[in-house]
Amino acid sequence: MDDHLRETLISSDLVYEGEFLKVRRDRVRLPDRSESVREYFRHPGAVVILPLLDDGKILLERQFRYPNDQVFIELPAGKLEFGEDPLLSAQRELKEETGYTARSWQFLCRIHNAIAYSDEHLDIFLAEGLTPGTPALDAGEFLDVFSLSLDELLLWIRSGKVTDVKTIIGAFWLDKHRVDGW
Amino acid sequence: MDDHLRETLISSDLVYEGEFLKVRRDRVRLPDRSESVREYFRHPGAVVILPLLDDGKILLERQFRYPNDQVFIELPAGKLEFGEDPLLSAQRELKEETGYTARSWQFLCRIHNAIAYSDEHLDIFLAEGLTPGTPALDAGEFLDVFSLSLDELLLWIRSGKVTDVKTIIGAFWLDKHRVDGW
Repeated sequence: MDDHLRETLISSDLVYEGEFLKVRRDRVRLPDRSESVREYFRHPGAVVILPLLDDGKILLERQFRYPNDQVFIELPAGKLEFGEDPLLSAQRELKEETGYTARSWQFLCRIHNAIAYSDEHLDIFLAEGLTPGTPALDAGEFLDVFSLSLDELLLWIRSGKVTDVKTIIGAFWLDKHRVDGW
Repeated sequence: MDDHLRETLISSDLVYEGEFLKVRRDRVRLPDRSESVREYFRHPGAVVILPLLDDGKILLERQFRYPNDQVFIELPAGKLEFGEDPLLSAQRELKEETGYTARSWQFLCRIHNAIAYSDEHLDIFLAEGLTPGTPALDAGEFLDVFSLSLDELLLWIRSGKVTDVKTIIGAFWLDKHRVDGW
C-alpha cells in the first residue's frame, strides 16, 4: 500500500567509520523512479529507565552533552550493545549510573528520535521497588543523580528547563500511566 | 557550578563532509583531566508544526523514512536553512507540505532529540485558523496528508503505532494545552 512513498536501495557506501558513528551514503530510487542520495547512520538502539522511588519521586541525572556544550537533565539511559537484551541493558545501566536496583520492571514504549538520518530507537522502562546501592560509572562518565516529583518535572518541561525528548516522553507517559492507566 | 561535569575542546577535525551530514571528531578533556573522543555532527535545527483544524482534528503526514525502511506518521516538519527564522520556516513548510496556511501561530516548546551525537533542536509551533490550499512539495519529497483527532492520536501513541518523538511530544503538549492551559 505504500509503493507511492517507498524508496529502494540502488547502492550503498560506508563513507565514515568512526569509533561510534558509522555513516552510510546510499543511492536510492524514489517513488517517481528518479534517483536521490540518503546519508544516515545505523544505531544499535538504546534504553531509557524511568526509576520511580517509593516516595513518588523520579530519579534523574545531570549530564554534560558535548555536541550542545550544555548540561542536560535526563532520565538514566544507555546505548545497547549490538544484540543485547533491552531489559537486561536497562537493569545494568540503572545500576551502573545510579547504584539503584529495582524489584519491578515494566516496558512502556519504543520511540524513534532521529528518523531523518538514523534508525535509532529507544525503549523506555518503568522501574519500581527501588533499592539504593553503589554506582559503577564507566571510565570517562560523569554525572549527578537527583530526584524530583513528577509534578515538578512537568513544570520544568513546561518552562523549557528540560528539553531532552526521552525525558519529556517518559514524564508525559508516567502522567498518563498515573491518571489514565497507560 | 558544572566544572565537575564539563568537557572541553582540545582539537577538532571534520572527518566527513557529505551533502547533509558533516561529522566532527573532537579530542576533549574530561573533568578528571583525562582525554577522550567525541564524534558528533552539527545540525541547523528544525521546526515542527502542530496544525489544528477548526473541527479539532490534527493534520498529520505519512512519510517513508529510509534509515528505518518504514513509513512513519508524523507532524509536518522541516530542517531550517542556516540562519533562517524558525517561525517563517514553519509557515513555509506547512504550506509546502500540506497546502494549508494558518491565521494564528504560537510557539510551544524547543526539544533536543539526539543529545549524545548532535546539537539538533526542534521548535514546535501550534498553527490554528487553517485554510486549505495547494501543496508545493520539494523535488523528491513524497508524503500523504490526513487528519486525526487528538484522542485518536493519543491512542495510536499508546498502542505503538506512532513512535516519532516530535509527534508524540506535540500530541502530549496539545493535551496539556487543552486541559491545563500549557
